[in-house]
Amino acid sequence: MPTINAYAAQDATSPLAPYQIERRELRPNDVQLKILYSGVCHSDIHQARSEWGPSLYPMVPGHEIVGRVTAVGGEVTGFRVGDLAGVGVLVDSCQHCYNCAQGLEQYCENGHTTTYNSREKGTGKLTFGGYSTSIVVRQEFVLRVPPSLDLKAVAPLLCAGITMYSPLRHWKIGQGHRVAIVGLGGLGHMGIKLAAAMGSELTLLTTSQGKADDALRLGAHHVIISSDPGAMKAARTSFDFVLSTVPTAHDLNPYLQTLKLGGQLVIVGAIDPVGVHGGALISHRRSVSGSNIGGLGETQAMLDFCAEHGVVADIELIEMQDINAAYDRMVRNDVKYRFVIDMASLKGEQAAGPPSL
Amino acid sequence: MPTINAYAAQDATSPLAPYQIERRELRPNDVQLKILYSGVCHSDIHQARSEWGPSLYPMVPGHEIVGRVTAVGGEVTGFRVGDLAGVGVLVDSCQHCYNCAQGLEQYCENGHTTTYNSREKGTGKLTFGGYSTSIVVRQEFVLRVPPSLDLKAVAPLLCAGITMYSPLRHWKIGQGHRVAIVGLGGLGHMGIKLAAAMGSELTLLTTSQGKADDALRLGAHHVIISSDPGAMKAARTSFDFVLSTVPTAHDLNPYLQTLKLGGQLVIVGAIDPVGVHGGALISHRRSVSGSNIGGLGETQAMLDFCAEHGVVADIELIEMQDINAAYDRMVRNDVKYRFVIDMASLKGEQAAGPPSL
Repeated sequence: MPTINAYAAQDATSPLAPYQIERRELRPNDVQLKILYSGVCHSDIHQARSEWGPSLYPMVPGHEIVGRVTAVGGEVTGFRVGDLAGVGVLVDSCQHCYNCAQGLEQYCENGHTTTYNSREKGTGKLTFGGYSTSIVVRQEFVLRVPPSLDLKAVAPLLCAGITMYSPLRHWKIGQGHRVAIVGLGGLGHMGIKLAAAMGSELTLLTTSQGKADDALRLGAHHVIISSDPGAMKAARTSFDFVLSTVPTAHDLNPYLQTLKLGGQLVIVGAIDPVGVHGGALISHRRSVSGSNIGGLGETQAMLDFCAEHGVVADIELIEMQDINAAYDRMVRNDVKYRFVIDMASLKGEQAAGPPSL
Repeated sequence: MPTINAYAAQDATSPLAPYQIERRELRPNDVQLKILYSGVCHSDIHQARSEWGPSLYPMVPGHEIVGRVTAVGGEVTGFRVGDLAGVGVLVDSCQHCYNCAQGLEQYCENGHTTTYNSREKGTGKLTFGGYSTSIVVRQEFVLRVPPSLDLKAVAPLLCAGITMYSPLRHWKIGQGHRVAIVGLGGLGHMGIKLAAAMGSELTLLTTSQGKADDALRLGAHHVIISSDPGAMKAARTSFDFVLSTVPTAHDLNPYLQTLKLGGQLVIVGAIDPVGVHGGALISHRRSVSGSNIGGLGETQAMLDFCAEHGVVADIELIEMQDINAAYDRMVRNDVKYRFVIDMASLKGEQAAGPPSL
């Protein structure tokens, strides 16, 4: 089996370091990509550091992958060698449950397989993500990447982009809607770009006055400082839809109060418990919902939408060797707004010994 | 102004006692009812005891009123003397805001007026509810009561009934939906009857094994004991819609886990904070919403639906003089499932001195 260069975490506390992994031999339905760019998602850090329950090691993070097809299996019909292609958070699902049949692979009833920190169906082998020079994925989980876009800035669309796009589409947000995005980070900046491209009247809710100019540049029409009680009071019953990117336990009530009658607050990042005051829901028939990435068809639609509207992420390109420093900066929110690894930097890397799975 | 007999709370700690109140002279748009029956809602207790923030005293509770029209103003077109009629939780709203214009008077942007513990628009006088012999209400807030139903058992439809009917209708629940009602009390027993009449496959979630037989008699198809972790685990991802009548702060997560992908949990009674685990929302795109009684048009539709399907409350008829004992029994959950006051019992009551407003 081909052995390739990667960067891996060996446990929850060690920095990421060079490592060699094997990719499976091509199956008839598989597409092999040379990885050009790999986005760095905050969930890479959470999982590398085992902050979301026990992680599987060694771990090669990375689920915002853009590359070029280098080989295809005999039954592959959707891709040819040389095509641009992408891989996001998922690499497999059962493909036959009710949810999969509706294109909702992210909610597969039999459990989907994530791009890393997961186990391959059948073999039980660990999956390894995009911090590596190539990947092999069944064609149903490979996306077509529009060649018109800046490829390195496309990578973050595969997680941050679809995580924002899916709820905006599911709740049919567009012209005539007053929308607020909570938080301006990797997710939030994509939320602003996408919701603006969809035609909504858009407000950023942020605790940081310093982010106001950037939010307006990215496409927001208004900025409200959410730590200012007077500003939040003035914003009461303003919005049809609030999309929160806050990744930690927090009180949803100040955001709920900004919703109109029948308004919807959607969380995508708060895995921890969130506080909800029943009265805030009941008094205006408001809703709180959760949303998880997007299905494969929807992810393709998102990429096509981004090509049509010229939407990509704002990124800072780094080399693979910078990853631990990049993690430290991300923990300090010191990135505008996504690190993307130039995978050419990994090519000549001295790798550690052979994998011992 | 006509002075009539009533029962009132003079403060948060005294028992209810006889009292005399004035009703306003008929305005051109007013309907005067002789009150025949008045349901006893748990919110009567909360408000009489000032448990929902400062209450207004003296307070005459009661917002589940069935009576007969005894006089109408000159501009009243919808009612004639002798008609059966009902009054629920609301007696006024602005009638011109966006929500009122949509028949959503319960969400009036300018603040509705409740049947008691509120102040009359314009005059600022206290409103007094159904624990009295008559009431005067503008015709837009008076309901037509179908004569085919048992009148004393209709009264609880005006609050408990509409509180359950509105979310079931708003979220379009009917045949093909798997629905759970949480809690079997005044609200829950109406939820079972209404959701069953709408054709859903219906489960009661209750902590009380002793309520199982009653739930099946009322129309539920299944009963799950929610304090049994094994039973709740077996019920995971079962329901399209869960309607919770739990009136106090509680953890919503066990109920959220019973929802299918895209399922909806609606709370109607939890004014206090409720606990929500973000992961339970995100993993299945679930929603938590609140719902508050119903609009006037919807309340009329509910009464007509109940007439068509023969739905009324299960009640225990009491005399006005029994009200304090009834409150004590309600606090102990000792009623199946709603007390209704036979207002004829108040007619000869010795009333306290004149009102000193």
